[in-house]
Amino acid sequence: MITILGIDPGLQATGWGAIRVNGSALSFVGSGTITSDTRAPLAVRLAALYAGLQQVVAEIAPEEAAVETTFVSRDGAATLKLGQARGIALLAPAAQGIPVSEYAPNLVKKSVVGAGHADKRQIRHMIGVLLPRATAKSDHAADALAVAICHASHRTARAWAAA
Amino acid sequence: MITILGIDPGLQATGWGAIRVNGSALSFVGSGTITSDTRAPLAVRLAALYAGLQQVVAEIAPEEAAVETTFVSRDGAATLKLGQARGIALLAPAAQGIPVSEYAPNLVKKSVVGAGHADKRQIRHMIGVLLPRATAKSDHAADALAVAICHASHRTARAWAAA
Repeated sequence: MITILGIDPGLQATGWGAIRVNGSALSFVGSGTITSDTRAPLAVRLAALYAGLQQVVAEIAPEEAAVETTFVSRDGAATLKLGQARGIALLAPAAQGIPVSEYAPNLVKKSVVGAGHADKRQIRHMIGVLLPRATAKSDHAADALAVAICHASHRTARAWAAA
Repeated sequence: MITILGIDPGLQATGWGAIRVNGSALSFVGSGTITSDTRAPLAVRLAALYAGLQQVVAEIAPEEAAVETTFVSRDGAATLKLGQARGIALLAPAAQGIPVSEYAPNLVKKSVVGAGHADKRQIRHMIGVLLPRATAKSDHAADALAVAICHASHRTARAWAAA
């Protein structure tokens, strides 16, 4: 049995979602959203996100973590902002020696909904089916649970392939 | 008298340079480059940069830090990479409660060389003039010293304006 922490990075709001995997059974551990004060300097906002994630990592004590790869948009300023928040999201588990896997957005959707193109509503619905006790209160938390589920299914596939 | 830490973020190599400011006199404290293993996973590379910067912050104990703002290029993948490294560079001082100022590249060049468009050779030359004892062994370390010098001159200007 292992615990997986999924993270959905964002400067304004970073979502997290943790699940437990026991063979092929998934169960919900927790989820939430960490926000930063839009009026604070960038470095202070990143420090707030990091402190929040550090606390989650300490409380949940995941064995593995997963983060979505980022869609690189044409909006360079937005990409830079997301990159900065994403650096923090990757660092928080990695600084504790926890391996972090990255998955493309389409693969995450496909793992959860069965199709590479799914809207937020479909993802939240399937999370409710896969994790009946989940209480993802935001889209960020739901996306974080989705990437955790994606990692759960792919790490099992890798283990089968290696067997 | 205060100590200022300048950081030049990069995923492959992050430069740092520290100076001491005593009235209008500048002196060199130290500089260096922190590299990450290109074969390691992204999260591990970011953790290596963070650990290196944490050590520098602990040893140098700066009162203030400065980082260049990033030129947003059309290459989204490069912007994302730099953003991730930049998040780490801003976090390392901010997580210790050290205020981090950001300066545009042109302003940094103007503060050091006197012109907004200067090449790396001119910057290294002027750093040798302003900080005779400096031993910036890489362009990254020289760029980090340059942003520290820029912050030194602007924080003084702000203090004058406030007086």
